[in-house]
Order: sequence, then C-alpha cells, then structure tokens
Amino acid sequence: MVSKRVKRPDEFALIGQYFRPLATDPGAFELSDDAAAYRPSRGRDLVLTVDTVAAGVHFHPSDPPDSIARKALRVNLSDLAAKGASAVGYMLALALPHDWSERWVRRFAAGLADDQRRYDVTLLGGDTTRAAGGVTISITAIGEVPTGKMVRRSGARPGDAIFVSGTLGDAALALEIARGKLSASRASTARLLDRYRNPQPRMSLAPVLRRYAHSALDVSDGLVGDLAHVCSASGVGAVIEAARVPLSKDASSLVVAQPQALTTALTGGDDYEILATVGQEKAAAFVDAAGAVGVAVTEIGRVGAAGDSVPVVLDQNGKALRLAQIGHTHF
Amino acid sequence: MVSKRVKRPDEFALIGQYFRPLATDPGAFELSDDAAAYRPSRGRDLVLTVDTVAAGVHFHPSDPPDSIARKALRVNLSDLAAKGASAVGYMLALALPHDWSERWVRRFAAGLADDQRRYDVTLLGGDTTRAAGGVTISITAIGEVPTGKMVRRSGARPGDAIFVSGTLGDAALALEIARGKLSASRASTARLLDRYRNPQPRMSLAPVLRRYAHSALDVSDGLVGDLAHVCSASGVGAVIEAARVPLSKDASSLVVAQPQALTTALTGGDDYEILATVGQEKAAAFVDAAGAVGVAVTEIGRVGAAGDSVPVVLDQNGKALRLAQIGHTHF
Repeated sequence: MVSKRVKRPDEFALIGQYFRPLATDPGAFELSDDAAAYRPSRGRDLVLTVDTVAAGVHFHPSDPPDSIARKALRVNLSDLAAKGASAVGYMLALALPHDWSERWVRRFAAGLADDQRRYDVTLLGGDTTRAAGGVTISITAIGEVPTGKMVRRSGARPGDAIFVSGTLGDAALALEIARGKLSASRASTARLLDRYRNPQPRMSLAPVLRRYAHSALDVSDGLVGDLAHVCSASGVGAVIEAARVPLSKDASSLVVAQPQALTTALTGGDDYEILATVGQEKAAAFVDAAGAVGVAVTEIGRVGAAGDSVPVVLDQNGKALRLAQIGHTHF
Repeated sequence: MVSKRVKRPDEFALIGQYFRPLATDPGAFELSDDAAAYRPSRGRDLVLTVDTVAAGVHFHPSDPPDSIARKALRVNLSDLAAKGASAVGYMLALALPHDWSERWVRRFAAGLADDQRRYDVTLLGGDTTRAAGGVTISITAIGEVPTGKMVRRSGARPGDAIFVSGTLGDAALALEIARGKLSASRASTARLLDRYRNPQPRMSLAPVLRRYAHSALDVSDGLVGDLAHVCSASGVGAVIEAARVPLSKDASSLVVAQPQALTTALTGGDDYEILATVGQEKAAAFVDAAGAVGVAVTEIGRVGAAGDSVPVVLDQNGKALRLAQIGHTHF
C-alpha cells in the first residue's frame, strides 16, 4: 500500500498473483480474508504439525526455489504420513530477505503448485513478510485421521519388529559429499542430492500404518536418533542390525568403498522415510500391505524391554557399534 | 543429540524445559510426538490464521522477550476475534539466531505462559530451529466458530454503520516518536509504546461480532487501508469522518499539537482493534452488546455503494482528506 514505486510487486500483488491460485479450497476464501474456515469431517481428528526450513540451515540459498518449496511442504507431509493421517491442507508463513526477486517467488509457488497436485493438498492461508536474514519458510500442515487413531511414537511394545520404508542415508551422504568428506561419481552424487532436495513423503503408507503399526515416526533426524525417540516415548529398548538397514545402490557403493559412510547412513538426517514398529505376528501382513501401496519396507531389528535410552546397533559380527553421535539436529 | 558440549541446552532440552509446560492439552502429547491431535467440537468450523513477526521488521531485537512473545501470539488472536472465533490453541515456529540465550528463551516462554492464562489458549505443537537472520516467530492460531458463522471481510452492505473498537493510532504514533518525527512527554511515550508492544486482542467481542456484524477485520495495517480491504472484498465504498475516529488522550494531545499526527493515526499500523460494519437498524444494539462485554465501540462512518477502491475520509469541514498513503505494510 506504500506509494513509493518499486519494480517488484507489493505484498498484495505477490499474494494475488502467485499464492491465490494455490488456495483452491472454498474455506481459503482465495486468501482474501484474515483467516481460513475449515469444516472438519465427522468422526475425524485433525493432525497438526509445523516445521520450518531456513536458508543456510536446511537448504542452500542458491538451491532451486521449486525444490525449496517442495522440501518445506514435504517434510510436513511426511510427519502426517507417519502419524497415519491423510493430508488436507497447509498454512504457509514465508519470510523473504530484502533482495527477494519476483522470479524466485514465481518458481517457489510453482514448486508448491506441483506438490499440491501430487499430494492432493491445498493452501488454506498464509502470511508473507520481510525478515532480516535469509528465506525462512514455516508450514503448518493439517491432516485427518479417524477419531483416536493417530499413530503415536509411544506405542512400541517389546517384541515388535522394527521396520523402515525405502532406503536410508542418501540425503546425509549427499551432504557429506558436498562437504568433501566422501567422494562419489557425478551421477551418483546427483541422485543422492536429489534425495536431499526432494524427499518423498510416504503418504500411501498412512492407512497401512493405522492398521498395523504400534508406533511410527518419520526419520528426519537420523535413524538411530529417531529410534531413540520412539524408545524413550514408549519406555522400551531396541536392537537393530546395521547390515539389514536398506541402502540404495549409491549408498551401498559408498559404504563398500568408504566404511565411515555407514555411520552417516545410520545417523544422518533428512531421510523422510517411515520408521514403524509392528507386532511380530502381523509383520508379514504389514510387508504385504505396504507392498500393495507401492512402498518397500524392511525389517531391521526388534523392540526390547526398557534398557538404555540409546538403541543398540549391531555390526555384521553381532558386536555393538559405538557411535560418536546418534542423530542429526537442525538446531 | 550432537555430542559436542555447549553451555546452552540443546533443542530437546529447550523444548522440554520451556515449551512442554505450555502444551497443556492432552492432544499436544506434551510435545513428545511429531504432531498434535485435535478433536474438533461438533457443529463448529475451525478458523485458522498465521502471522509472522520478525526482528527488525515487527519488533526491535532488544525488545523484552516476553513482550515479543505476547505480540506474536496476540496479532493472531486478534484475527480470530475479528472473525468471531473463540481461540483454542496455536502452533509455534520459533527460529533463533546463532547468539540466542537461554535467558531470552525463558522470558519468551514466560510471556507465552502469561497469555495462555489470560486468553485460555494452549500450545498444541511447535518447531524450534536455527535461522540465519534474527528471531523469527510464526504462529498459526486455531479458533472455532459455529458452522458457517465466520465473520467475513466481504459482508459489508451499503448503509452499514462502520464501527471501530477502542482507540486507534497509539502504536503507530509510538513508532513516529521513536523515529524522531513526533515528540511527546516521557509518560505519554511510554503509554503509546505499550500499545505498540502489547496489543489487546478483543476476544470478548467475538460473539458480539457473530451476532451483529455484516463484516469485520482487525486493524493491523492502518484504519484506512484495512477499511479499503473490506470495501474491496465487499464491493462497496465507504465514507468516514476523521473527527469521529476515537483517539486516546495521548494521541489527541499529539494531534492538537502536531496536526500531521492525525494522518499517522488514520493510516499507521499495529492497532489490533476491530473494524466492523453493522446494519443501521442494529447499530444501537451492537453498541450496547459490545459495552456489556467491556469494549467501547465508536461509529465513524457509513458504507456506501461501490465507488473508489479507497475510502473517503472527511475532515471536520466535510472536505475529503488527501492521504499520501492509506496504510502501512510490514512487507
């Protein structure tokens, strides 16, 4: 509303041009009001989660804006999937630095638009503001589960089989390569980096988790660290076998050539795969049901009685690995 | 989880010590899970709003942390009140700069705790992260209204009386004094600055707005600019009289001594009072009902047929004021 002229659109023009087309739900009122109205379905709980991604912390300022948008949204969708929830919509808080460009915002919004189609979610509301530092994006994602059916961290029981979806470690290995601590071919590096930039939230697994999982979370801070969270919330211990942890071909090659890469795969962050514990008697049915929705899950260990707060990781000789750290924090 | 020792608590300790006590709803799971579960009441719509406040943009980095917390929460609660919603809870995304201190976080959390008691809201979930710039706080607030009863910007009708709650301009005048563009006594400055730092969301007015208001919003970007939003969303015009705009004693003194202060009061931001339009036949009942919940409301003008996108502001001689700008943007 300020009368001085700049070449970039003002806040209202920016919202109208790039974000209004994303607000397809009638309750978003085309972003023309101060708030959104959301009518919950009968017999459902809302599942609410918030995650922030910030330049220089979670992504490089020069990363492609569409991939930044996807990552900001998907880390939240991944939380919903792990809780057994179907995704509904999201609230976007976008803080832009003084040197933001319209081109950047256009590509950022295009990344969101792609993912809205892919995951059937919609922008419910937002706020665009200036910030003193780099781009900071906070998304609050909203999902639904049947009443009382959110899958908790705290439900793991001794004897449960521990499963993970997909493969682990690619994203963290990409960072280690970027830091010069590991080396890989250009093609391999590109594939690993793609997993860092474009996590694949396992939305299709949500109903399978509701049916079979005693506990679940998404692996965002490293497998061992996140498993420790499950143990702590559930009052149990856990033993996993490093050799059973599923690795991509690229990650396997790195581990063979450079054994320290195994630790990165076990404790690095940004996997956004699902860790779930399932009663042994239902383990086979869980594998089948996950396969039926297109997600490979791998059993990597067992839940035990309450023990150390840190899960035990056995090497291929059955000896406990000593890990200098068990997880990765973005803080 | 990183093994290196620092004098400050890590993310998990920080959350456990300062934010877990704020998460009093059972669905927040003491912040021990990846998401919150919220069971909506039958026959209610959720009302969702998000606002970010950032150091150097919405507050000074050296402002008292408890007042920063209050402002971050209250600007969102004010949106809920304007929409006729009762506040339920909020999701907090807190990005801290590298030089954050535990003392700052303690005082910030204490500010939130005070306001949770005052407004009967609770922390449902959150994310704490590092950011490259200064402190950035995004809050998504969640409220409820009876199904279909959210008060919109778009409902104003020609002939409606235009009302505002409380007094306008104090916060913007405080900023002008801080910038050396206006001067006031120390006591007066302190009172004005308090209104900038500690907005008073008009929660008690929410049910009154649901009953009487055709349209409403909270005045955050300046009276004339926000009234323009109502006109644009409703397809109407508006005429207000500058002399009827309610001013505090401090603001009145400034306007008498320094007439340019009137423009600041009409177009400056951060009032967080309610602007509502009410059918003429119910205007007296609205004033009474607002008074009964402790909020003074003042009629300042009338909604007219669709006209200019910018409301007309008449001076005391009935002549239209020319305003260089009509509102304030935080962008």
